Amino acid sequence: MTQSAVSPAAEPRVWCRDHRGRTYAFEDFLKLTESFHGYPAPGVVIGAKMVHLAMRQMPAGALFDAVSETAKCLPDAVQMLTPCTIGNGWLRIVPLDRYAVTLFDKVHLSGIRISVDPERLDAYPETRHWFFGVKPKRKDRTRELLGEIEGAGENLFAVQSVRVRPEHAAKRPSGPRAVCPDCGEAYPSGHGPSCLSCQGQSRYYERG
Amino acid sequence: MTQSAVSPAAEPRVWCRDHRGRTYAFEDFLKLTESFHGYPAPGVVIGAKMVHLAMRQMPAGALFDAVSETAKCLPDAVQMLTPCTIGNGWLRIVPLDRYAVTLFDKVHLSGIRISVDPERLDAYPETRHWFFGVKPKRKDRTRELLGEIEGAGENLFAVQSVRVRPEHAAKRPSGPRAVCPDCGEAYPSGHGPSCLSCQGQSRYYERG
Repeated sequence: MTQSAVSPAAEPRVWCRDHRGRTYAFEDFLKLTESFHGYPAPGVVIGAKMVHLAMRQMPAGALFDAVSETAKCLPDAVQMLTPCTIGNGWLRIVPLDRYAVTLFDKVHLSGIRISVDPERLDAYPETRHWFFGVKPKRKDRTRELLGEIEGAGENLFAVQSVRVRPEHAAKRPSGPRAVCPDCGEAYPSGHGPSCLSCQGQSRYYERG
Repeated sequence: MTQSAVSPAAEPRVWCRDHRGRTYAFEDFLKLTESFHGYPAPGVVIGAKMVHLAMRQMPAGALFDAVSETAKCLPDAVQMLTPCTIGNGWLRIVPLDRYAVTLFDKVHLSGIRISVDPERLDAYPETRHWFFGVKPKRKDRTRELLGEIEGAGENLFAVQSVRVRPEHAAKRPSGPRAVCPDCGEAYPSGHGPSCLSCQGQSRYYERG
C-alpha cells in the first residue's frame, strides 16, 4: 500500500471547503446546491467559490460575520459553507444588488470582500451573458455555463481588504416585548404603542 | 417478528417533518439546529413546530412560498424544513418583528399564517420569560425552557387562513446589468447612472 501525500496539486479539484473543513468537488457541490437551493443555480456555484476564497484569506480561527450585497443566490452559498445564517444574524444582506460578499472578523471588523470583476468576464462568454442578464436567456446552455464557471475558478473575482463600519457590524439587542392592543400579538415595545403591522406597515396579507 | 402499524398515536413523538417527509424527534431537531444555526436556539425549535403545523395544513402538492415576519431564528426553521431559502427567493422576510410565519400557494396566494399567541404563554413561565425578553435573561434555565417548549407542542400558536396580496407575492425579475462608472462593478441598470453604493447608500465598509 502506497501512501499518497496531500499535495497542493490536489487543490484545483476542490471547488470549495466549508467551515468544518469538508471539501466539495464541483459536481458534489452542484448536488448540495440542488438539495438546499432547489436547483444548481450558477449564482450559488460562483458564490461558493467567492466564499471559499474569502474564508481562505481570513486568519485561522477568526470568528467572522458575513455580508452579502445581494439577496439573490449568494446568501445561500454563505449559509451552505459558513456558520453564518440569516436567522442567527451572522449573515446580513445589504441591498445594493452588487454580486459581492464580505467576511469580517467580529472583533476587529477587518475583512475580505470578494466581488465579480466585470472585466474578467470577457474570456467567459456564457458567464458574461448570464451575469449581465442579457435577453434572451440561454436556458439551453446551462451545461456550458456551468462548465465555464468551473474552468474559470477564482479568475472571475476582485479581492479587497476592507474594514466594516462599526454601526454596520453592531448587533441590535432584542429589547422587551409588549402585546399589541390591536392585533394581540407580541412586538418590540420600542416600536411604539402598537406593532408595525397595526401601524400600517408591510401589510402583506388579508384574512383568507 | 411482529409488525407494528404506524398509528396516529406515534405522531406526538415527531417534533417536525421536512418537505421531503423526513421526520425529526425533538432531540434530533436540536442537533440539526446546532449544526445549521450554531446552537439549539429556542426560537428555531419553536419555529420548526410552526412551520410543521403550517405545512400540514397546506394542500398536498401545493408549491408554496414563505414569509417570516422576523429575521430572528424563524427564517432558519423555514430554511431547514422547506424548499424556501433566502437565496432562492421563496422565503422573504417582512420586517415587522412579530413571531409569525406564513406559507402560501405560489399560484392562488392562499395560505396559512402561524403566530405565537401571547395568551397561551401563561401556562409556560420559562417560555413567557424568554419570549417577552424579560431581563435578566435566565441563561441557566435553557434546559427547562426547551422542556417546556417540547411539552407545549402546538399549544402556543394561533392559526389563520390568509391571502397574500399580489404585490407582495410577485417576484421581481432581474433586469439587465450595467458597469458602474465609479466602482467598476456590475449593478442593475434600473438603479440609475451608478450603483446604489456609489450613490451613497449602505456604505457598510471602507478600504482596509
